[in-house]
Amino acid sequence: MKKILLAPDSFKGTLSAIEVCRLIKARVQAHFPKAQVVSVPLADGGEGMADCFLYALGGQRVHLPAASPLGTPVDAYYGILPGGMTAVIEMAAAAGLSLAGENKRPDTATTYGVGELIADALRRGCTRILVGLGGSATNDGGCGAAAALGAVFLNAAGEPFVPVGGTLDKIAKIDLSGLNPALPDCALEVLCDVDCPLYGERGAALVFSPQKGADADMARMLDAQLRALSKRIEADLGVDVSEIPDAGAAGGMGAGMLAFLGARLVPGIETVLDIVGFDNMLSGADLVITGEGRLDSQSLHGKAVSGVAHAAKARGVPVVVLAGDIDVDMEALYAFGVTAALSTNRRAVPYGQAKLTCADDLSLTADTLMRLLRLRA
Amino acid sequence: MKKILLAPDSFKGTLSAIEVCRLIKARVQAHFPKAQVVSVPLADGGEGMADCFLYALGGQRVHLPAASPLGTPVDAYYGILPGGMTAVIEMAAAAGLSLAGENKRPDTATTYGVGELIADALRRGCTRILVGLGGSATNDGGCGAAAALGAVFLNAAGEPFVPVGGTLDKIAKIDLSGLNPALPDCALEVLCDVDCPLYGERGAALVFSPQKGADADMARMLDAQLRALSKRIEADLGVDVSEIPDAGAAGGMGAGMLAFLGARLVPGIETVLDIVGFDNMLSGADLVITGEGRLDSQSLHGKAVSGVAHAAKARGVPVVVLAGDIDVDMEALYAFGVTAALSTNRRAVPYGQAKLTCADDLSLTADTLMRLLRLRA
Repeated sequence: MKKILLAPDSFKGTLSAIEVCRLIKARVQAHFPKAQVVSVPLADGGEGMADCFLYALGGQRVHLPAASPLGTPVDAYYGILPGGMTAVIEMAAAAGLSLAGENKRPDTATTYGVGELIADALRRGCTRILVGLGGSATNDGGCGAAAALGAVFLNAAGEPFVPVGGTLDKIAKIDLSGLNPALPDCALEVLCDVDCPLYGERGAALVFSPQKGADADMARMLDAQLRALSKRIEADLGVDVSEIPDAGAAGGMGAGMLAFLGARLVPGIETVLDIVGFDNMLSGADLVITGEGRLDSQSLHGKAVSGVAHAAKARGVPVVVLAGDIDVDMEALYAFGVTAALSTNRRAVPYGQAKLTCADDLSLTADTLMRLLRLRA
Repeated sequence: MKKILLAPDSFKGTLSAIEVCRLIKARVQAHFPKAQVVSVPLADGGEGMADCFLYALGGQRVHLPAASPLGTPVDAYYGILPGGMTAVIEMAAAAGLSLAGENKRPDTATTYGVGELIADALRRGCTRILVGLGGSATNDGGCGAAAALGAVFLNAAGEPFVPVGGTLDKIAKIDLSGLNPALPDCALEVLCDVDCPLYGERGAALVFSPQKGADADMARMLDAQLRALSKRIEADLGVDVSEIPDAGAAGGMGAGMLAFLGARLVPGIETVLDIVGFDNMLSGADLVITGEGRLDSQSLHGKAVSGVAHAAKARGVPVVVLAGDIDVDMEALYAFGVTAALSTNRRAVPYGQAKLTCADDLSLTADTLMRLLRLRA
């Protein structure tokens, strides 16, 4: 073992991807002290994405006050990668559900702060801005973020306002003439993988707003609001967002960023791997260790594990998955390029108990893997 | 991988050692079709021991009617190993708790049937008889078995009777003059590892009789009975069984076999490994796979895993443990000669749920191990 690449997702609910890297790295170094260990913690849009990039590539963590989902100022942050041209923004840093505390109101929550983060990155000259959607408290169709970047939403009386989830149908006109002038020269990319249309049975409001505090009545109301927004966008901007697969991501943030800000919706993990230069990192690697909290059928569809396995397979590098639970068709997993998968579970106990020892269990499982590799090394 | 030795214990409550061997062997052969796979399912005294020996070495399964713990005839069996000189008897085959059904009465249950099995083996000319203690329903201090082999127990009126757990204090005299004449020329070995004295706080009755159906009052009564037996043995036979560490095994069967029948109490796993010729089997092996249902601190003290690891370490053969739960000091385990241990748990679910998928989970874990070995092969 000369070079081992660590490229795990977070273990959702227990360990961040960076913690996972640190725990595994310690066990690799204990058994292969001369091996080069390259850590690439992955987050394909959700919380921790900025820090993952900064951990893997270096760069700068920029802190600034921005509007929380409640509209009050919060200490938000984003990352600027080495070279200063690429910014990595987690939507959750300004509009995250955790910032709403007990006050979970998707009908009034705003993405305004996310727009402020984007504006700051533009002001600093970034020409590529990645925005990860994930963990949002909002259902405003991205109107708040667009407003912070100069979009003007007018009501029937011709008065400007910042629409929220419950007032999207009050938009009588959308005026983009005052948009931030730096936007056209910036590649704005939205990372999303939820495959969620803007509205309807599988749409943003009916599927996700209950997690954000909506009851059934509010969810139906929010769905109708997004439907109204879709019509308004088509009428005023000539863009049809109703059929775009990821338009409903993060309470319609996907649709808004596309329609108002000219963003591209890009596949999360592929973009992340591209930016970190994963393919180059694979060069000379003897092994890739990836992982996530739960390895299931979703893992095979555009998640960290499948992206890593796909890239490694192309290079002929073996991949081992460390996961909390494993509940997946193993043959399908192997066909993706995974060599083997190890569960970190060591005792037959329910999740509430297992999570208490998750760090130790992961460490012990990584140690076991190293021991088995040494057996034949 | 040219030669792999499979030497697991049973996964208690879910899989027999033979089933464990079969499941692992299938995965070894799928990945290393040219490898020689030698299966040595292990049972160090408990249920399944006879079949384990027969599976590993061949031989004959002898069936005969014998007294159940209730005294009624049951179809019992034991094994005769190739050559015809060595018999392997599981006490549970005639005096097992599972044979008592709902009728769990350690105060009246008898080991008489075990004596009948020994007598049959003597009649067939066996000169070495192993008796595994484990899973017994009895607390008769081995008096029943001895009676079946010619020992005579007399009450105060000088009348012969077969003592049971609740009548040991009725023995006024023990007469061994009529013992089976083949016994002196037979090496009778009792496999036991429970470290349980005949009576007292850590003794047979107070610790184990509740599992056999005794309530607190009965347990105390049975303890007093064993104490009385100990005094009678010392008085009549000049043997002090009160301080012998394993004398209390299987409701005092250890004490009785030693005092009445001249048996030796031998360590279970070492004897088993000796008889199967484990040390020779290790010759040329690239790997030993062992395992058990629960790997805990007991596993390090005279159980299958520690015995296998000890022998393999002396030969420099790596050992991998597959276990249901792993809850043990890993450094201590590695110091014993274990290279790595893999839990078969794949999901954070309680035991009642995990046991439903135990065969699949073991199979998948063995498959994972093979995949990791191939990674470097």
